[in-house]
Amino acid sequence: MLPRGRPRALGAAALLLVLILIGFFLFGGDLECERREQGGPGSFRCSLTPRVPPDGDLPADHGGCNRSDCVPLRPLPPKCELLHVAMVCAGHNTSRDVITLVKSMLFFRKNPLHLHLVTDAVARNILETLFHTWMVPAVRVSFYDAEELKPQVSWIPNKHYSGLYGLMKLVLPGALPPALARVIVLDTDVTFASDIAELWALFAYFSDEQVIGLVENQSDWYLGNLWRNHRPWPALGRGFNTGVILLRLDRLRQAGWEQMWKLTATQELLTLPATSLADQVWGSLLGGGGQAQGQGEMAVSAQDIFNAIIKRHPGLVLPLPCIWNVQLSDHTLAERCYSEAADLKVIHWNSPKKLRVKNKHVEFFRNLHLTFLEYNGNLLRRELFGCPSPPPPEAEQLQRALAHLSEEDTCLEFRQQQLTVHRVHITFLPHEPPPPRPHDVTLVAQLSMDRLQMLEALCRHWPGPMSLALYLTDAEAQQFLHFVEASAVLSARQDVAYHVVYREGSLYPINQLRNVAMAQALTPYVFLSDIDLLPSYSLYDYLRASIEQLELGSGRKAALVVPAFETLHYHFSFPNSKAELLALLDAGSLYTFRPTYRDCLQILKDEFHQDLSRHYGAAALKYLTALQQPEAPQG
Amino acid sequence: MLPRGRPRALGAAALLLVLILIGFFLFGGDLECERREQGGPGSFRCSLTPRVPPDGDLPADHGGCNRSDCVPLRPLPPKCELLHVAMVCAGHNTSRDVITLVKSMLFFRKNPLHLHLVTDAVARNILETLFHTWMVPAVRVSFYDAEELKPQVSWIPNKHYSGLYGLMKLVLPGALPPALARVIVLDTDVTFASDIAELWALFAYFSDEQVIGLVENQSDWYLGNLWRNHRPWPALGRGFNTGVILLRLDRLRQAGWEQMWKLTATQELLTLPATSLADQVWGSLLGGGGQAQGQGEMAVSAQDIFNAIIKRHPGLVLPLPCIWNVQLSDHTLAERCYSEAADLKVIHWNSPKKLRVKNKHVEFFRNLHLTFLEYNGNLLRRELFGCPSPPPPEAEQLQRALAHLSEEDTCLEFRQQQLTVHRVHITFLPHEPPPPRPHDVTLVAQLSMDRLQMLEALCRHWPGPMSLALYLTDAEAQQFLHFVEASAVLSARQDVAYHVVYREGSLYPINQLRNVAMAQALTPYVFLSDIDLLPSYSLYDYLRASIEQLELGSGRKAALVVPAFETLHYHFSFPNSKAELLALLDAGSLYTFRPTYRDCLQILKDEFHQDLSRHYGAAALKYLTALQQPEAPQG
Repeated sequence: MLPRGRPRALGAAALLLVLILIGFFLFGGDLECERREQGGPGSFRCSLTPRVPPDGDLPADHGGCNRSDCVPLRPLPPKCELLHVAMVCAGHNTSRDVITLVKSMLFFRKNPLHLHLVTDAVARNILETLFHTWMVPAVRVSFYDAEELKPQVSWIPNKHYSGLYGLMKLVLPGALPPALARVIVLDTDVTFASDIAELWALFAYFSDEQVIGLVENQSDWYLGNLWRNHRPWPALGRGFNTGVILLRLDRLRQAGWEQMWKLTATQELLTLPATSLADQVWGSLLGGGGQAQGQGEMAVSAQDIFNAIIKRHPGLVLPLPCIWNVQLSDHTLAERCYSEAADLKVIHWNSPKKLRVKNKHVEFFRNLHLTFLEYNGNLLRRELFGCPSPPPPEAEQLQRALAHLSEEDTCLEFRQQQLTVHRVHITFLPHEPPPPRPHDVTLVAQLSMDRLQMLEALCRHWPGPMSLALYLTDAEAQQFLHFVEASAVLSARQDVAYHVVYREGSLYPINQLRNVAMAQALTPYVFLSDIDLLPSYSLYDYLRASIEQLELGSGRKAALVVPAFETLHYHFSFPNSKAELLALLDAGSLYTFRPTYRDCLQILKDEFHQDLSRHYGAAALKYLTALQQPEAPQG
Repeated sequence: MLPRGRPRALGAAALLLVLILIGFFLFGGDLECERREQGGPGSFRCSLTPRVPPDGDLPADHGGCNRSDCVPLRPLPPKCELLHVAMVCAGHNTSRDVITLVKSMLFFRKNPLHLHLVTDAVARNILETLFHTWMVPAVRVSFYDAEELKPQVSWIPNKHYSGLYGLMKLVLPGALPPALARVIVLDTDVTFASDIAELWALFAYFSDEQVIGLVENQSDWYLGNLWRNHRPWPALGRGFNTGVILLRLDRLRQAGWEQMWKLTATQELLTLPATSLADQVWGSLLGGGGQAQGQGEMAVSAQDIFNAIIKRHPGLVLPLPCIWNVQLSDHTLAERCYSEAADLKVIHWNSPKKLRVKNKHVEFFRNLHLTFLEYNGNLLRRELFGCPSPPPPEAEQLQRALAHLSEEDTCLEFRQQQLTVHRVHITFLPHEPPPPRPHDVTLVAQLSMDRLQMLEALCRHWPGPMSLALYLTDAEAQQFLHFVEASAVLSARQDVAYHVVYREGSLYPINQLRNVAMAQALTPYVFLSDIDLLPSYSLYDYLRASIEQLELGSGRKAALVVPAFETLHYHFSFPNSKAELLALLDAGSLYTFRPTYRDCLQILKDEFHQDLSRHYGAAALKYLTALQQPEAPQG
């Protein structure tokens, strides 16, 4: 009995154990698969070993999940853990992109964030002002000077200076603070559709060897043979896209990353046939060449170098689920990814055509992107509950000042408006500062949406530099952008600086707007004007000549007053000379500027910026206040 | 040996088994707790048995989770499962609320939705037009006539007719289609901050007995004794809030729900002391009385009756995690919920003060709400990938028509605009239709944001009904709402109907706007006017008299032309009579309407609605076109 009984008892126990184990794995697997399909936080491609299929095809279940290859979910980062994000940003247009990306990130985030921005001087100037006035709680921003990093990448052949910025992703392990162990690196042309903490959570899946987390490319570029002699940089299969990167900075530093990528890049550049360089142009169109390159531009991208390194050391990479970098270039294979997933996490506009890319679902993706382009950034000034994230000191001071206001005060709205710190985006569009000239004058004015049609006429009448403050919502700022792009007159002018002051409250903050525009004027003199007034054609030259003649530069303080006239005629030939002006005055077609001006000031209080400028004709010259820059009046 | 060996082997196997079991539960529990704290989809309060603590205190870990009481997560509903949502909606203001709620729901949803709307005639008219023109893919809307359901609840004492609508939640099991087994019922004053599928997933936790899922009240109202003789309706502890309900309709029907609630309500009403009825007023202020009630209004709410039933049958209710109904009434205890959770799922503005409620974090919640108030609803017209959800036939037709347009066509923008179906929200603000009068005339005009300041003057000059189409963005519609609320002149007028046509594209769709305004005119005659023209004070009376005199009602078709004049003076005394008008004409203060009118039509093409009306003074009378309603011109 015993010899039979013992195995029976042991067998029963073993069977029970096996059943429990099966139950455990099946249950766990089943659960996680279901959850992943719903794209919950922490959901991920289930096979986490590098799995680039030998035939180069994206697996049908890319981002999908078979029950058998699921692994248990790991937790999201703790509630108040600080997440680090690095971006490289240069120039006016990329700064706009970064802000849209940041808005999408902030909309879904629930953790404190530290943004590490590698910037040129232009982007730093814009973004520093923006974040300073945005005052978002639990967001810290550090700037790193791209100029200082330039020597580390400038030896890599790039036809355009701008190509260097893309390469700076390679030097982040050395550039970011040594204590920083992990960072998410983003291209500026991505849009978040989910909480970035879910992406951060994927760091938990790195094996001891892995240092870089990347999503596979969703184009055939790196497979080569797209045409005769098409030889892209080496990559593992389709290679990986570097629009979204998880970097283990600590391990990269330990592993001698700097030597590694420089060696790889040098060796590949030496063996690269000349034709391959031209290929890069096409590569960028197909989403192969990293960040967008202009037509005809030769560029070796960070993506090329990352892929060449991974080809040599496949163990370094952790492949990420495709939904974390849905690539929308022409001929993208992204549909294989998103048509199965219930959930997209990050969209990547990695075509130089950006939102105009051809893609049968582009309308869907564009809507997601427009959501954040147009989103009122003021609404992102919301605190994180339960995280010790003191607001910036200015914000705290402001809160205290606002709390001191009495609700009974009849001027409450005005006092609130006075305290309001408006988000400011200086040089919203590309701008070339005027060359330094001792008697130069900048026309300074401010406007809102309903005065955009004045801009073309103003440009025709004032050939010199201008600094204009625009009081707009986020959505209106996009309309303004399209307005300028559609106008040949405005597009041609690089010496007009447009500064967007974002709307908040119901009053028109005329003093704050003027001050923003004045602070950004880069000449020694300014001509303060109303947006409804057109200067005479010769005024710019005349003023500079007068400033020189009157020797205003030699410490003599003076304000020049320019006579202003008004017409009530809709079709009006602007006078070309004083004689013509006097003739029109005699004929009664022109009047001197209205003496009832002051009566109209009350209209300023109107809720919807019915400012007095509406009440004056469009063909008058007003006044000149010539001031040395530091003496701008306080609003 | 054997007797010792066998137990040893068995013991080892048993120990292994126990260890595995412990590992399983610990691991599972740990995992789920971590996830829940991060508020991932499907996360929930871990104890799912009814757990209203005897001392009436909300547990400190409400919405929190101890490792020991965690249960495994259940999956979200399958990707394309249709989710059902029911709401009761009556009147103009509630219709606006519903749209904001729906926008927040659509923003996060990933499933097809079927909305079941119990509406009065006003809300049905508004919402039918809105959803028809919105054309959101994978959203079906069914309407149920509140008038038909009224007799089922009208026996419950309610001082105001409007109180009855809140009670209609009780009759949903009978009113909704018999085949419908589950539905989420929402108050119109909630805002979603997450995917509704996560809420739907909680149906999986209902025991066989449970039929209603509810979140506990976050106020002390139902505890009673807030003052002497304060005796609220009976409830289990703090009771449950009915702003968010999961209903198992199938089981409710089986269980004889109709009898159950009627019996409970009758018995409670019979035993209720008279003073308790007055208490309801205070109850609503404290978020205890269900949907908001006006000051001094006596109301028995559906919430009272639900709670009385649950007090009698505690087994019917599944308590839901508090984050699914964060209640923002005065003195709310909600902070205990949201300060621990990383994630809020649904916000409930269950104070009559709504967004003006006093709460130290109200700014945070208000920002979330404003996000959807201002959100461009057009962006929600996005398809669901991978779900067979054909767009409405009109949308498909439109897509085909748009696809046929040539990108080379110089008129492309105009043709696109002509095909665009604008979202239309008719009677955006409360409106009383004019009493039927045979010769009545409605002033019909259209405007955009920059003409709001004309409205007060227009109201002073035209004492009759008006139908005005406003071309606005979602954000501007809110500004417009505040503009009207702040104006005594506009607030006093119930006979002015404002119809919001939502902006899309860069052109001003003047014909579509006029047609919307004309279609909503409820009188036999209309006076088509430009927003920049002010009718003479007597015109409304004069026109009605003329229509009667000229017997236009007797089938005679005629258009009456009203002479129009123009002034260039900013400060202008409007003429009170023809004699005064002629005197001003002689004095040159007034001109006849400009003959160069047609020259200006090209300005209409300007991108930012620089329409010609800007070019005319504000004191002219234009023309009258008297048409029988069906003859409205096509745009």
